[in-house]
Amino acid sequence: MEYQQPASAWDPCATLSTSLTLADLSKASSSFNSAYAGEPATPVLRLIAIAKDKGYKRVCLPLTTKKWEERWSRMCLLPIGGSEKDKEDVAKEAEQWRLSPGFRLDETTITRLDEAEGIIAMISEWLELDSTDDWVRHDAEIALKQELAYASYLNIQTAIVPAPRNRDHVASYARIINACLEKCPYINLSIRLPIYNPSVFQPVLPITSQHIPLPTSLLSPKGNSAPSLVISTSDEAPADSGASVNATWEIWDVIRSMCDYNPRLTLTLDLSPALPTTLGVLSKWAAESVRHIFLPSSTFIANMKGYPVLPKPTQQFIRDSMIHRPMIVLAGVGDGHHSKGGEAAYSQYVRHLEKTSAAVLATKQPGTVENFAQGYQDFLQAPLQPLMDNLPSVTYQTFEQDPVKYAQYEEAMYHAFLDHPPNERLVVCVAGAGRGPLVARCFKALDRSKREASVIVVEKNPNAFVTLQQRQHAEWKNKVTLCFGDMRVIDVPEKADILVSELLGSFGDNELSPECLDGAVRFLKPTGISIPSSYTAHLAPLSSSKLYNEARSTKNEKSLETPYVVMFQAVNILSGTKATADNRCGPQVQECWEFEHPRRDAVLDSRGLPFTNSHNARSAKLRFYIPHAGILHGLAGYFEAVLYGNIGLSIHPQRKDQVSKDMLSWFPLFFPFKEPLYLPSNSELQVSIWRLTNDRQVWYEWHAESFISVPAAVGGSEEELLGSPFSPNFSTMATLSPLIDSKDPMYGDATRRTPHDHNNTEHPRYEMVKIGHTSLHNPCGRSSWIGL
Amino acid sequence: MEYQQPASAWDPCATLSTSLTLADLSKASSSFNSAYAGEPATPVLRLIAIAKDKGYKRVCLPLTTKKWEERWSRMCLLPIGGSEKDKEDVAKEAEQWRLSPGFRLDETTITRLDEAEGIIAMISEWLELDSTDDWVRHDAEIALKQELAYASYLNIQTAIVPAPRNRDHVASYARIINACLEKCPYINLSIRLPIYNPSVFQPVLPITSQHIPLPTSLLSPKGNSAPSLVISTSDEAPADSGASVNATWEIWDVIRSMCDYNPRLTLTLDLSPALPTTLGVLSKWAAESVRHIFLPSSTFIANMKGYPVLPKPTQQFIRDSMIHRPMIVLAGVGDGHHSKGGEAAYSQYVRHLEKTSAAVLATKQPGTVENFAQGYQDFLQAPLQPLMDNLPSVTYQTFEQDPVKYAQYEEAMYHAFLDHPPNERLVVCVAGAGRGPLVARCFKALDRSKREASVIVVEKNPNAFVTLQQRQHAEWKNKVTLCFGDMRVIDVPEKADILVSELLGSFGDNELSPECLDGAVRFLKPTGISIPSSYTAHLAPLSSSKLYNEARSTKNEKSLETPYVVMFQAVNILSGTKATADNRCGPQVQECWEFEHPRRDAVLDSRGLPFTNSHNARSAKLRFYIPHAGILHGLAGYFEAVLYGNIGLSIHPQRKDQVSKDMLSWFPLFFPFKEPLYLPSNSELQVSIWRLTNDRQVWYEWHAESFISVPAAVGGSEEELLGSPFSPNFSTMATLSPLIDSKDPMYGDATRRTPHDHNNTEHPRYEMVKIGHTSLHNPCGRSSWIGL
Repeated sequence: MEYQQPASAWDPCATLSTSLTLADLSKASSSFNSAYAGEPATPVLRLIAIAKDKGYKRVCLPLTTKKWEERWSRMCLLPIGGSEKDKEDVAKEAEQWRLSPGFRLDETTITRLDEAEGIIAMISEWLELDSTDDWVRHDAEIALKQELAYASYLNIQTAIVPAPRNRDHVASYARIINACLEKCPYINLSIRLPIYNPSVFQPVLPITSQHIPLPTSLLSPKGNSAPSLVISTSDEAPADSGASVNATWEIWDVIRSMCDYNPRLTLTLDLSPALPTTLGVLSKWAAESVRHIFLPSSTFIANMKGYPVLPKPTQQFIRDSMIHRPMIVLAGVGDGHHSKGGEAAYSQYVRHLEKTSAAVLATKQPGTVENFAQGYQDFLQAPLQPLMDNLPSVTYQTFEQDPVKYAQYEEAMYHAFLDHPPNERLVVCVAGAGRGPLVARCFKALDRSKREASVIVVEKNPNAFVTLQQRQHAEWKNKVTLCFGDMRVIDVPEKADILVSELLGSFGDNELSPECLDGAVRFLKPTGISIPSSYTAHLAPLSSSKLYNEARSTKNEKSLETPYVVMFQAVNILSGTKATADNRCGPQVQECWEFEHPRRDAVLDSRGLPFTNSHNARSAKLRFYIPHAGILHGLAGYFEAVLYGNIGLSIHPQRKDQVSKDMLSWFPLFFPFKEPLYLPSNSELQVSIWRLTNDRQVWYEWHAESFISVPAAVGGSEEELLGSPFSPNFSTMATLSPLIDSKDPMYGDATRRTPHDHNNTEHPRYEMVKIGHTSLHNPCGRSSWIGL
Repeated sequence: MEYQQPASAWDPCATLSTSLTLADLSKASSSFNSAYAGEPATPVLRLIAIAKDKGYKRVCLPLTTKKWEERWSRMCLLPIGGSEKDKEDVAKEAEQWRLSPGFRLDETTITRLDEAEGIIAMISEWLELDSTDDWVRHDAEIALKQELAYASYLNIQTAIVPAPRNRDHVASYARIINACLEKCPYINLSIRLPIYNPSVFQPVLPITSQHIPLPTSLLSPKGNSAPSLVISTSDEAPADSGASVNATWEIWDVIRSMCDYNPRLTLTLDLSPALPTTLGVLSKWAAESVRHIFLPSSTFIANMKGYPVLPKPTQQFIRDSMIHRPMIVLAGVGDGHHSKGGEAAYSQYVRHLEKTSAAVLATKQPGTVENFAQGYQDFLQAPLQPLMDNLPSVTYQTFEQDPVKYAQYEEAMYHAFLDHPPNERLVVCVAGAGRGPLVARCFKALDRSKREASVIVVEKNPNAFVTLQQRQHAEWKNKVTLCFGDMRVIDVPEKADILVSELLGSFGDNELSPECLDGAVRFLKPTGISIPSSYTAHLAPLSSSKLYNEARSTKNEKSLETPYVVMFQAVNILSGTKATADNRCGPQVQECWEFEHPRRDAVLDSRGLPFTNSHNARSAKLRFYIPHAGILHGLAGYFEAVLYGNIGLSIHPQRKDQVSKDMLSWFPLFFPFKEPLYLPSNSELQVSIWRLTNDRQVWYEWHAESFISVPAAVGGSEEELLGSPFSPNFSTMATLSPLIDSKDPMYGDATRRTPHDHNNTEHPRYEMVKIGHTSLHNPCGRSSWIGL
């Protein structure tokens, strides 16, 4: 039954699907004649065969017919007229149904396993799981469970659930979804969500249906008395699309969080509404499990020739999404909305977007990190601990394949050599040489710079030291002196002019380069230099449902207190791209600290070693501006290193391409948070991170607090504000105007104040209000420590 | 060595302690002569003996002398002048100290175990654990650990740590405290915190000390560049005391949260500053582990006669705190601040406050809940499940001791009987009679109302049924008909006029009264009534570090997903006492739902039973206004019941005294939250709670979301705001003025809008911004379900 895919060199990322309607089904039914030989056995099978012939991999199908909607509505909604006896009969019928819910034959669209194979079930759209009426919600829940039970019976893997409509009852919607995930342990539920839906945010929603009035007790008196949450308070001004996309996401966030990030819960983003022209706000969807993208033909516009194309923002969004391999659900493509191209034009266009997606192209391009990292996206790895563990040869081999890193090292050495007088004999020490790649580059650089040097090679891995001996024997001869042992302990025969090392981790110092080089700088002459000469650690706040679930799923109770090496894909950096104008908040990615080698300020013992490791402790407190609401799941860690002069290494997302493009050796670090932290739009995140050390260990601890700016309440009464909690904000704010007296409640008397620095302005004062925090992570080096 | 307490009938709640200073110690040293017979062996022992003679139970003592401060400062702070050689020598000395920290003899105040017995160590006040200088923090941490290690060596149980001073580095302070709790596994740390300290909130703190400049690398370039968090932005207007108390608490919250609610971490509230005149904001301290109250003589004022007394707010706060049995640390009471009374006057006054504390008095008063509940405060109990489990006789006995509950039932029956014609023979059915207390009250009520009735008694507990038979035999004879069995199943010989039951739980319906009475109403005539006729469930948001820790400590992974019965003491209700003027938020304690009996709207099967339990499902969404910042740890659950007419039962905190004063039978319910939720001042909490049911179970699920009101961003650019994150709030707000054009970013053109409803006002529009949520608790009845 597997559909034959047209032969193509292209390995598609996205799956194309079509969406059939009840109208399609009834048309197929009426024209169906099973008497023809070779004809599929049922109208539905015929429709599916046709869809697959057209190149669609999957078919979306409603499971229930109009008959079911009619019966459910009759049983569960307010009847018009009718006698008391009729009403009681209906109420009894409904109770019987609630007792044992089930369909009649003509209420379902499919009945056979072969009809259901590969089908995605579209759950009845009229189910109001977030109705304002308690009974409607109650009966919609039963109906949803009934439909999912039927889908499960037919072995259907995925069901798309109609969109929530009512912010005020999203919690009820989410609770029902969670109950369904629990009740149907094999099915995947995908929540259909318009990417931008102003109607969700109307002050009061029209109640589309009301329950029969008999059992009124369920209608809690409190249930509907308060006004709905008003996101846009004015009917005249529609919420801007940015806020609306945030609000759509906020609804998804409630559902996903209340379902505890269930991996069987995904998202069907409905692109029917026009997308906003600025895409910053859309990047948040990258961090969510968008499994399907619903794309009706009405979203397409006609190009000059009349062929269907998508508006620019939608184009861009779909191109960017392709990397996540979504299923694109095309709907209404047979309706002839566009004059040219026919039905095939829509899927051809989507394939065109895929082929021109920069993100997809990068994965196909040999030499890029994206290509190199295939299969490693969002895969958590424990960071290497090369000081504690002796690396195997294959690990060295992998790293030696990096074409950029060693070129940069060679270039750094080349320039360092050039800066030495040509006639001086140099001493170079390669500390932690591994299998010798830096030694080889050193000779290349000496060659290019026409300098002479003796090279001292230090390595503590006894296995790699065999390889070094072999290379000495075969290549380097007496130009190198091999020294076996830990650079923090051993001595070398001669002091060096240049110390070269490659001890850096994804976060710079996380593989204990500072501690190792504290020992190795003993090998340097007083005027000697180190390559690298310095390095810095950088952080950015990150959102990723995927990584959060991955970190949790290791089942180790410390799994959320240890940093991971990971190639990011389904992530979103939450911080604004630039520093705020007042410099209160820094840029998107911020520097934590720096290490320089050699240390100029060292206090050393008689062996030339530091007494304690205190000087390698570090701490940073960073402030990030969060423009769009999101969930903080962790911190992304990066490093930059200065090798020599202006030659460096960088995995800083905004600078890596200038500094060391296509370098493959390091994926970023991910510091997870145990509890996701909600960050509203326009908030501030303060991150504290410490690099801590005692006489045996080095480790990081991290913590975050969130703040939002509100009009200052200074001068307000400290009694509870018994009016609206919100209008008092204004009235107290008003007292801050220099034109109005401010009261000091401490002493109970009104003293006049005229702040000079606020004259001639009516700007209200703002204060930062704390709104949340995480716990302290990895306290006392509980895990992820690295032995010294 | 145990000090002899003066004989007293009064069982004191608070412990009195005195605080000795270095000056006290040196004075005692100079006048000390150990040659006298009977004299204690050391000056410190002599001081302690004197203190105990004066009636103090405990003595607070600094552990270190001025010599230590001098050595530490010389090693770790910036020296003035000195040669390079001197600086290097000092740096080496410091490194040696960091390597193996320890005191010299003259740097400590005590050395002997007997000197340390019962002592509370006051940690060196000059330690700046939250200095802006990284090296000062680093070396203060080593010094603190050194001091705690010495205290532990001397078997000291508790150390009071100097107050944090710098909001910006509280996270570092907290991290150090957590490290100390880990390193010293037996000592209790108490954080001294001024209850109100404006100096904490200055924009820029004076750096009192700077580290020697040698190792500059620790001073991260980011460390001090951003301005400190400014809580009051104007130097001229001091933060009002309410905000300041909130800010003090906020600091404590960071410390306590980062130490993961460690039970060995407590609080020493320093009452040196004058308290605010309104006490609402102080109630939050009831929910925290305030172990010590620091009360210097300078806080006292002189009364008309010159004796020391406390200002009214401080009096009240101490009276209210007495219930938590704090240690009151009196300081400087020997300094002669007040002309009359001498040193004894201070402790006499504190004892006077204790004896006049309403809360303490209530615990001493027989018949009050407070007295009855001694030993049960903040103790978590699983709710009874009398339907699933048959109760033991002692449980019935305990409940039957309630003098109020059964009086109310008798009164209700009495009035119900009176409302029947005197000559009519009544049929009364007691459903779930237990050992028969309601039957006995029924006969009393019949007697008082001069009515005749036959009484049908239904009970399903076979053991209690033996007691009923015995009472029938001994007391009731043929006036009662005993029926054994479950009221949902059995039939009774005769239909009743009045159905009496006592099936209520702390939350009303949580012991399945609705489900049981669905069966029992079959025993009623069509015109019959039920006592109770209705009941309601109520909720309030609760903060309590104690209860959070208790719920966690049961080690059961579901322990935070099940409600508990608990007598609240160390708790604080977070919601504002009254509904907001716009009715958006309800009052402090809000009604969730109601059950009425008999149901008038029932659809029943041929046996008179409901087909499904759908009609007993309930849900509520409640909005609470949160005036003062706090941590949400759970929900407090209460019930009210109407028995008959205006006779009821209530444990609603604001109404119980009017409805059923001194009723003992029910403690409130506590619905815990797994993750504490931070709620800022002036925020809104939305609570969703569901009573859910299937054919076997009834359970609750609960969830909360938090919001804050900010000026509406409508009309703002959806691009990231690259200025200050805060000033843009103002500028976008300004565009909302009717005098200024508003821009619609969706279409990119400026269209003029003049909202009619905002004419002549410059009120900015506010929007509710989501700031946090909890997870869904007890999903799908994972735990705490009750079998039907």
